[in-house]
Amino acid sequence: MQGAVLYGPRDVRFEEREFPKIMKPTDAVIRISSACVCGSDLWPYRGIAEITQPTPMGHEYCGIVEEVGKAVKSVKQGQFVIGSFFASDNTCPTCQIGYQSSCQHRELVGGAQAPFLRVPLADGTLVATSEIPSEGLIPSLLTLSDVMGTGWFAADAANVKPGSTVAVVGDGAVGLLGVLSAKKMGAERIIAMSRHPSRQKLAREFGATDIVSERGEEGIARIKELTKGIGADSVLECVGTQQSMTQAINCTRPGGYIGYVGVPHGVSLDGEQLFFSHVHLHGGPAPVRRYLPELIQLVLNDKVNPGKVFDLTLPLEQVAEGYRAMDERRAIKALLRPAEQPD
Amino acid sequence: MQGAVLYGPRDVRFEEREFPKIMKPTDAVIRISSACVCGSDLWPYRGIAEITQPTPMGHEYCGIVEEVGKAVKSVKQGQFVIGSFFASDNTCPTCQIGYQSSCQHRELVGGAQAPFLRVPLADGTLVATSEIPSEGLIPSLLTLSDVMGTGWFAADAANVKPGSTVAVVGDGAVGLLGVLSAKKMGAERIIAMSRHPSRQKLAREFGATDIVSERGEEGIARIKELTKGIGADSVLECVGTQQSMTQAINCTRPGGYIGYVGVPHGVSLDGEQLFFSHVHLHGGPAPVRRYLPELIQLVLNDKVNPGKVFDLTLPLEQVAEGYRAMDERRAIKALLRPAEQPD
Repeated sequence: MQGAVLYGPRDVRFEEREFPKIMKPTDAVIRISSACVCGSDLWPYRGIAEITQPTPMGHEYCGIVEEVGKAVKSVKQGQFVIGSFFASDNTCPTCQIGYQSSCQHRELVGGAQAPFLRVPLADGTLVATSEIPSEGLIPSLLTLSDVMGTGWFAADAANVKPGSTVAVVGDGAVGLLGVLSAKKMGAERIIAMSRHPSRQKLAREFGATDIVSERGEEGIARIKELTKGIGADSVLECVGTQQSMTQAINCTRPGGYIGYVGVPHGVSLDGEQLFFSHVHLHGGPAPVRRYLPELIQLVLNDKVNPGKVFDLTLPLEQVAEGYRAMDERRAIKALLRPAEQPD
Repeated sequence: MQGAVLYGPRDVRFEEREFPKIMKPTDAVIRISSACVCGSDLWPYRGIAEITQPTPMGHEYCGIVEEVGKAVKSVKQGQFVIGSFFASDNTCPTCQIGYQSSCQHRELVGGAQAPFLRVPLADGTLVATSEIPSEGLIPSLLTLSDVMGTGWFAADAANVKPGSTVAVVGDGAVGLLGVLSAKKMGAERIIAMSRHPSRQKLAREFGATDIVSERGEEGIARIKELTKGIGADSVLECVGTQQSMTQAINCTRPGGYIGYVGVPHGVSLDGEQLFFSHVHLHGGPAPVRRYLPELIQLVLNDKVNPGKVFDLTLPLEQVAEGYRAMDERRAIKALLRPAEQPD
């Protein structure tokens, strides 16, 4: 089969890769219905995160179970499944508390930008739908694998409640789905920080009540103006840079909450500044597995439509164009469709 | 009158100071029943925090109202009162949310190691008891002004609940009262990190179920051993150094909570490390005013006896010995009694 492999900065190739096999009795192999490019894929694509060898790319996936290992009990061949980018056993003490992305046996899932994918710890990682969903639901279901699960976690970690005033830092797909999540959780006011018209538009569709296009000190002042001079109750940090984290801390009211889900790159927090800011800070890799059952129901019942973040759909073989379009911010998020496979 | 003034590292003098006056109509002047030396007073005493001029010391206080400004309505002459180290108006949006120590009009209270003290924003800062408490309750009531309020906030910020497993980093007075607070909030297991026999003993009296005397990597390993290999649900960081914060982060389970109340000195947090630790972080200067009514009742009803942290009582004029004893860790916390004042 052919899949995406990153060789170095801005060098994604669509090339022959080994067909995935069951390697452990707890594995499953799935046939990918759709995959996509993640904002976090852009870190190594841009050379900001180093890669040391050609790396199969993609960690967001949904599809049909092709084969399962002997120990797998909860999913079977032919079922439609969605899983997290971190495989988890879903039974260890950390999983039981709901932090499956810190599972004691977690493994990164990799290589999903391909027609087939091996998923370790299938029982603890994959959630099956009761029926095969219609084609139109695939984009939204796919987002639950990471980007929507991550936006949801950002809002949850930021303690969004009915009536909350929320600010969202970052207008990438995660930030936009953070807006949607906050709306779904009952936030009364949702301030999206964005300076891109197409993203502002989608933010409004998802539930943003205010758009702040200013950044830095001006952006902070604008948020304060909108929030009784004290800042937002909840701030979703969806970027992962020093600037975005500083922005988030300064936009939060004393006693308010920051949910940070942008993987920090070169971020350092000054202890004293954080102390006197009086904020709550929580984040990390989203425990997507915890939210999957609930989010799948929301999508199947048409309560949310996170698939709208895909504003570019490409055949899988054009994966490199997907990276380019996102890198150049021509696309919010690129959906990749593998060619029909022979049964 | 005479009070404590810090001139420089290890140079506390008991010397003539101006008698405090009502300077604004919202002020009160109180006659100090007892004062004490705070762990945070040791930062400038040790030269770690710089002072630029001779500074009247002390910010923990309780006493009898001597005089109030014209605008003061909620407390009156002759009442026994306790207040926070941060004066607050208790009406601004930040106060209303319960973060009075970030009040939009907050002022540090200073100079309490003296027979009399000016307290700004008296209505929003002081809480009066319905009767004059007995002499024996004064030490415990005094702790509510800062050290017990801070230990309580640490436990609250660390989300201590009935049944929680808690670890406390720091065996100073705040850490020990963090143990007491966690116990009172229903923690099932309380691990105190301490290597001093007298402090270990008091920690046990306050409710610690386990003592860990190891530090650094060994201390972390020991805490993990005691907590199913994953770490404590709640960790109270009561020191404020890089080492203690690192210890706290590494002793907390994924999804667990750190309440940090040690004023950070030279602490820097690595964003990526914090992200993958999956902890909740909350802290800052304790909003003592929020807790005062509840804690006063607990003391008056003999439900807690935080005054036990005072293992040294001195006449106020020997304040310098109080600093020395705490600096050399001969004393956990020094209580200072002003001489009887003529009425």
